[in-house]
Amino acid sequence: MADLGTDLEVVAWIDGRLRILDQTRLPDEEAYLDLTGVDDVVDAIARLAVRGAPAIGGAGAYGMVVALDEARPSGVEEARAVLEAAAARIGAARPTAVNLPWAVRRVRDAAIGGTSVEEIRRLALDEAHAIVAEDREACAAIGAHGAELLADRHRILTHCNAGRLATLGIGTALGVVYAKAAAGHPVEVYAPETRPLLQGARLTAWELHRAGIPVTVLPDGAGATLLASGRVDAVVVGADRIAANGDVANKIGTFAHAVAAARAGVPFYVAAPRSTFDPATPDGDHIEIELRAPDELRGAPGRPGAPAEVAVWNPAFDVTPHELVTGIITDAGVLRGDYSAAIARLFEQI
Amino acid sequence: MADLGTDLEVVAWIDGRLRILDQTRLPDEEAYLDLTGVDDVVDAIARLAVRGAPAIGGAGAYGMVVALDEARPSGVEEARAVLEAAAARIGAARPTAVNLPWAVRRVRDAAIGGTSVEEIRRLALDEAHAIVAEDREACAAIGAHGAELLADRHRILTHCNAGRLATLGIGTALGVVYAKAAAGHPVEVYAPETRPLLQGARLTAWELHRAGIPVTVLPDGAGATLLASGRVDAVVVGADRIAANGDVANKIGTFAHAVAAARAGVPFYVAAPRSTFDPATPDGDHIEIELRAPDELRGAPGRPGAPAEVAVWNPAFDVTPHELVTGIITDAGVLRGDYSAAIARLFEQI
Repeated sequence: MADLGTDLEVVAWIDGRLRILDQTRLPDEEAYLDLTGVDDVVDAIARLAVRGAPAIGGAGAYGMVVALDEARPSGVEEARAVLEAAAARIGAARPTAVNLPWAVRRVRDAAIGGTSVEEIRRLALDEAHAIVAEDREACAAIGAHGAELLADRHRILTHCNAGRLATLGIGTALGVVYAKAAAGHPVEVYAPETRPLLQGARLTAWELHRAGIPVTVLPDGAGATLLASGRVDAVVVGADRIAANGDVANKIGTFAHAVAAARAGVPFYVAAPRSTFDPATPDGDHIEIELRAPDELRGAPGRPGAPAEVAVWNPAFDVTPHELVTGIITDAGVLRGDYSAAIARLFEQI
Repeated sequence: MADLGTDLEVVAWIDGRLRILDQTRLPDEEAYLDLTGVDDVVDAIARLAVRGAPAIGGAGAYGMVVALDEARPSGVEEARAVLEAAAARIGAARPTAVNLPWAVRRVRDAAIGGTSVEEIRRLALDEAHAIVAEDREACAAIGAHGAELLADRHRILTHCNAGRLATLGIGTALGVVYAKAAAGHPVEVYAPETRPLLQGARLTAWELHRAGIPVTVLPDGAGATLLASGRVDAVVVGADRIAANGDVANKIGTFAHAVAAARAGVPFYVAAPRSTFDPATPDGDHIEIELRAPDELRGAPGRPGAPAEVAVWNPAFDVTPHELVTGIITDAGVLRGDYSAAIARLFEQI
């Protein structure tokens, strides 16, 4: 498809409406949903029709405007009450994504001081647009830094989906891939399927294929063998949280690739915006790992899997210790070496 | 369930008939099939109703008797022709399992010299029983050696299924587990689900749960994190082929666990009978890895997965280099250290 997927709009404000790509229907169908009420917005976030922390934040931010348009408040006080109620409901649509409550609070804070219903709506929409624009710029900056860093490394192993489908721009890990392609570098991607929810097979493969970038899907357990075979020039993954010492929480399976990459001598990069760093978390041991439902690994009629009676350990994320990370590609440049110092400097700058 | 699963008969000769457990219906249902003709036997092997190299060999061996009983030959020459035809057809039911052609040839060779139809059938059945008994003994010996070796290591990570369901006895890797349990050791097993066909989730979890041994299923990509967490005392896996230098071919995903185990300081053992060693293969580079159908990783209506159009790399096996193997538990004892010399000695003894 043309233009490396630039026509793909995962979260968009179009003709005064919030439209999202329904990711639950991928890869079978590229279908869009107009979200015209707070119920729609909460539902779309809760059932993962929109997923990826920045994308959820963007949907939530526009959802605040949707709330105003749905309620049609007759005065300033009523409009402010709508904002408060929407911030509470939308902000709680998913428990763990930190971007979501942050984004809705930001819209509320920007709009609540408006002195007319019209001004409140305009301030809310402007702030939502700003949130989207900032994430888009952060993705672009990560892509630019990454493309420069990996100018000579063309065969990329990633994990899960840290692409257009997860952000409001070109993605983080896949942002590097798109930026390489846009710069005219040859680039191809290996996408482990990412059990249990298959974000690699369903989402990364879909968005890269749609963008015209060669992608190969493999079982998660084949990543180590692929790395040992010499067919990968670099690993580039996203992150859910980065601790103050550079330890990286990301989708379960990431650490296994990091260990195998170290053994194979393949560099292992993490691509993430500054908002993913958590200076208050000293190291990976302090990152709590969400345990997801056992049923994701259990069978059901027509769906093979473990017997219903057996125990399941289904962690959503793992922690890759900083000593296995070759570099962290941020929107403010590439961090290397002493991550504790580099991350501290990153936050002094802000 | 009673007696650590000793009542489970995966391949059995009962009341003059070949009965197999239909593994395609696990874990939903414990259903058995009577195979009363060569077509049945070939079909059961081809569609993986019986799987695991030793189990397939046993089914094929008894299948030779099934062929005689189905054909009811009226004389010695006709009986010999039935054996030849059955050996050719059954031996080719699956292309890669080396035990299958070996087992049917062995039955043919043992029976073909019989001087009456009755004697031919008796010789064939005796040889099939002998093949089953030998594998059962090899499993028991592996279990005994492994239980002694791992007397103080109770929390075992395995991969795929190398248990009762794959062999004619208690299994190889899981044979060690059953032998530990029979010896009164505490033992619990972590079973990665083993994409794409989920033998860990569907089969290992099922047979251990049925046998009353605690088992926990996890995504393949979580194995490295589990190993790093200190919750595993030893990795014990089976093998599909072991080269002359000790390099081990086993289900895809095994190598990733081996690399992570080495980093975590957890011993990594391979359990396999002497028949799994291939002294004619110098090392892992000379083991050809079967590439399975891309559709195993692709989606279809109601089954999530990769888009139909994208490339897939779906290797069935990987190779773990011998330097990552702490020891190889065989029916003739435990090999360690210089595997080339130990394996050479193993075959001098025979």
